[in-house]
Amino acid sequence: MTDTTPRNVLIVTAHPEPRSLNATLTDTATRHLRAAGHQVRVSDLYAMKWKAGVDADDFPDRDPDRPLDVLADSGHATLAGTLSPDIAAEQAKLLWADAVILQFPMWWFSVPALLKGWIDRVFTFEFAHGPSLPPPYSEGALAGRRALVSVTVGARATAFSDRGINGRLSDVLHPLQHGLFWFTGMTPLDPFAVHDTVHMSPERVTEATHAYTARLDGLFTDAPIPYRSLTGGDYDHDMRLLPDVPTRGTSGLDLHLHPAR
Amino acid sequence: MTDTTPRNVLIVTAHPEPRSLNATLTDTATRHLRAAGHQVRVSDLYAMKWKAGVDADDFPDRDPDRPLDVLADSGHATLAGTLSPDIAAEQAKLLWADAVILQFPMWWFSVPALLKGWIDRVFTFEFAHGPSLPPPYSEGALAGRRALVSVTVGARATAFSDRGINGRLSDVLHPLQHGLFWFTGMTPLDPFAVHDTVHMSPERVTEATHAYTARLDGLFTDAPIPYRSLTGGDYDHDMRLLPDVPTRGTSGLDLHLHPAR
Repeated sequence: MTDTTPRNVLIVTAHPEPRSLNATLTDTATRHLRAAGHQVRVSDLYAMKWKAGVDADDFPDRDPDRPLDVLADSGHATLAGTLSPDIAAEQAKLLWADAVILQFPMWWFSVPALLKGWIDRVFTFEFAHGPSLPPPYSEGALAGRRALVSVTVGARATAFSDRGINGRLSDVLHPLQHGLFWFTGMTPLDPFAVHDTVHMSPERVTEATHAYTARLDGLFTDAPIPYRSLTGGDYDHDMRLLPDVPTRGTSGLDLHLHPAR
Repeated sequence: MTDTTPRNVLIVTAHPEPRSLNATLTDTATRHLRAAGHQVRVSDLYAMKWKAGVDADDFPDRDPDRPLDVLADSGHATLAGTLSPDIAAEQAKLLWADAVILQFPMWWFSVPALLKGWIDRVFTFEFAHGPSLPPPYSEGALAGRRALVSVTVGARATAFSDRGINGRLSDVLHPLQHGLFWFTGMTPLDPFAVHDTVHMSPERVTEATHAYTARLDGLFTDAPIPYRSLTGGDYDHDMRLLPDVPTRGTSGLDLHLHPAR
C-alpha cells in the first residue's frame, strides 16, 4: 500500500550527460514523488562541480603545521561546525531527508568517482559514526532514513544473478548497502537496477521508468533488507558473528542477514 | 623463492597527506623493489591533482553537439588515439608495467574517490575491454600483469574476518580484485592489508613495512587468486556458472574460485 504521509527525499546523482538515462530516472523520481506530495531535493554532483577528493581544505580551521589526520580532523571540524560549506550543506540535506536515493551508472562495479567523493567528504567522523554517536550497524547516526540504490548497469542481469560471473548484485553493492547505509543506521531497501543499458530503445526507457515509479511507491513501506544489528546479540566483542547463531548458508555476505525474515 | 628477473612495477596511490602511512608504504615498496633490481613508477594521484570525474573533456575530438556516450566516446577516442593526455599517460604506464599495485586507505569499504577516478578514466572502452580486445575474465586486455591491492584499514582484522560484520575482506574487495583486475585479464594476488590503523605506534609501522616487503618479494612468484576463466567452460552463454560445476560451498562470491587450487 502506498504511504501518503508527506516526506523529504534527497536524490544524489552523478552522470556527466544531462540527457542520460540517469537524468531521466532522476527526473522521473522527482516528478513522481512530488506528485505524491513529498518534498524532493536533488544533489546533481556533475552540475554542482562537486570536488571529489578529501583534503586539508575540507577542514579550514585545522592547524596547517600538523600532518593531516583525515579521521581526527574531520571529527574535530564536524563537532566544531567548521567543515567547508559545501560539505555542511550536504550534511544538512541528509539530516533533512527521510529517504536518500543514490542514482548512478555502475562504473567498474561501483559508484562513479564523483559520487564516491560525495560519500568520502560528507560522511565525516562524528557525523556518520564516532564516539559522540550511537554505535554503527544499528540505530546509528542516520537512523530513521530509508536508503535506495537506483543503478543503471551495462551488463545483462544474468551476469549479476546468483551464479553470474560478475557476482550477485547484492554482493557487489555490499559496500554501499551494508557498509554505508546500514553502518550509519539507515534502512536499506533492495536496489532498483536497470540492466543491459548499452542500447536503450525508447520503449525500454519507458519500461524502466514505469518499473521505477512502482518501486518508488514503496519507498516508505517496502520491507527493508534484514541486516543484523551489531548490538542485537548476534556478534561478539570483536564484531564476529557468534558460532551458534542461525544463518543462511555457512559462508558469504548472507551471513549478515537474519535468516527468518 | 624470490624472482630476480628485473621487471616494471607501477604503484598508484591516493592519500592527501604526504606523511601518511600510505606514503610510508609507497616509499617502502619503491625502495625495496628498486633494490631488487626492478623499475618502479609511482602515480601519486593527490600530488598529480588527478581529475576524478569522467566528462566530455576526456574525449576532446568528440562531436560536442551529440549527447555524451561514455562507453562509445571513450572507445572511439581510445582507438583513434585522441584521449586527453593525462589519461593516455596513465595507459602507457599500465602497458609498461609487469605489476600494478594500488596503495590506498580504505574509505567507506572502497577506494578513495581520486583512485576511483583513476580507474573510471584510465580503463577506457577498447583499452581495458571491448570488441577489439580478448574477452574479459580470461587472458584479457591487460593479461600478463600481476595486480596487488595494498590497503590500510582503520577497523580491526576480526571485523573483516570470515564471520566479521564488515564482510570478509576478499568479498569487500571483490569489485577491485575480480571486477577490475581479473575482468581486464590481470593476475590478482591476495591483498596486503594493515588493519587497526587509527593509532599506529612507530613499532607497528615498522612491523607493517616488514610484512609488506616480505609480500613484495613474492610479487612475481606468489600463487594468484584462482578465479575461473569466463572462456574455460565453467560458464554458460549468459555468463552464469553451470549447475554441474564443482564449487566451494553453494553461494557467495567463492563460487567464482576454482575449488581445487
